[in-house]
Amino acid sequence: MKSLTEYLVLQVPARRGFVNITPKVEKCVSASGVQEGLCLVNAMHITASVFINDDEPGLHADYEKWLESIAPFDPSPSHYAHNRTGEDNADAHLKRQVMGREVVVAITKGKLDFGPWEQIFYGEFDGKRPKRVLIKIVGD
Amino acid sequence: MKSLTEYLVLQVPARRGFVNITPKVEKCVSASGVQEGLCLVNAMHITASVFINDDEPGLHADYEKWLESIAPFDPSPSHYAHNRTGEDNADAHLKRQVMGREVVVAITKGKLDFGPWEQIFYGEFDGKRPKRVLIKIVGD
Amino acid sequence: MKSLTEYLVLQVPARRGFVNITPKVEKCVSASGVQEGLCLVNAMHITASVFINDDEPGLHADYEKWLESIAPFDPSPSHYAHNRTGEDNADAHLKRQVMGREVVVAITKGKLDFGPWEQIFYGEFDGKRPKRVLIKIVGD
Repeated sequence: MKSLTEYLVLQVPARRGFVNITPKVEKCVSASGVQEGLCLVNAMHITASVFINDDEPGLHADYEKWLESIAPFDPSPSHYAHNRTGEDNADAHLKRQVMGREVVVAITKGKLDFGPWEQIFYGEFDGKRPKRVLIKIVGD
Repeated sequence: MKSLTEYLVLQVPARRGFVNITPKVEKCVSASGVQEGLCLVNAMHITASVFINDDEPGLHADYEKWLESIAPFDPSPSHYAHNRTGEDNADAHLKRQVMGREVVVAITKGKLDFGPWEQIFYGEFDGKRPKRVLIKIVGD
Repeated sequence: MKSLTEYLVLQVPARRGFVNITPKVEKCVSASGVQEGLCLVNAMHITASVFINDDEPGLHADYEKWLESIAPFDPSPSHYAHNRTGEDNADAHLKRQVMGREVVVAITKGKLDFGPWEQIFYGEFDGKRPKRVLIKIVGD
């Protein structure tokens, strides 16, 4: 069994944002030499997500608005108990559960086995600082 | 390491619906000859889900109603920016994030290692056209 | 390829609760002898979750309140069709979809390859009875 481990570092300049990391994952798949296997991509921070969806700015604006309506940013400890710790990012921990921590993608004939519109995104919900994404590839 | 790759094609006649695909996944596990490993099942389209839950029509009606309350269908571009592209399916992209893209299931002694009620479903949120589901099995 | 399969049994004394199972997963990783691979951890019951987030009681209180606002407990069959079956746990099936069924964690140099705050939790939404969690490790 072959394997490859890579850590991406992302620093999103705003509090929230989405970054297409598909080309970076594709490079790792090529470098691994794996023809048939699995590729795990996960946020290593618990106020961020890795998810697969469409690379369309309107949709990303919809996600932003929708997540804010489901789990609004509110630094006050009266709204979120987590913010009693001095943090202001409880909302980010909630948003991340909706969007997910990780994706697992099949590798077939040496490539990410994607449908027509699948792209891998890093979703940041508490940015302005460096954060890591893990890529782990296993297979033959 | 053994591996198997299979693509299911599903065409749900309504806009939304849930289809139990467990028997089809079980056939692939048998065909793969894998005794110990992992089985990834994912929607290849970004307005659909693969998830594990109960095969109970009342629950599926609850999911339908609940998802519609969280992320209602609305073709107007004033509600969803994504629908400015000419699409009317922004809600489907949101619903799919709640229900998830994929499941990873353990294979133990040649079978899906399931709890008592676990069944694998395809969740369609923008149907009436053929869509694909990927099954990838790796192991020994 | 090496593999290890382990089943945890958890009985949460209240209807809902979160249990940090990271030490138990770490023991399995050590016992497996896997240096490079993947570790799947999933709830085997469909009214429970396995997820990764922060071990902070305030955040867990926020999750509890937030999930109850999104998918409130209501045993009446008029609110949830699933409860027509005699069950009272439709809300638990919904909450579990938000929090997820499973996590897949990379194993690197013989250890769970975690970011600074990542911890694995069992999330119970219909407790007071024994339930199982599956740990499946594959790799070399």
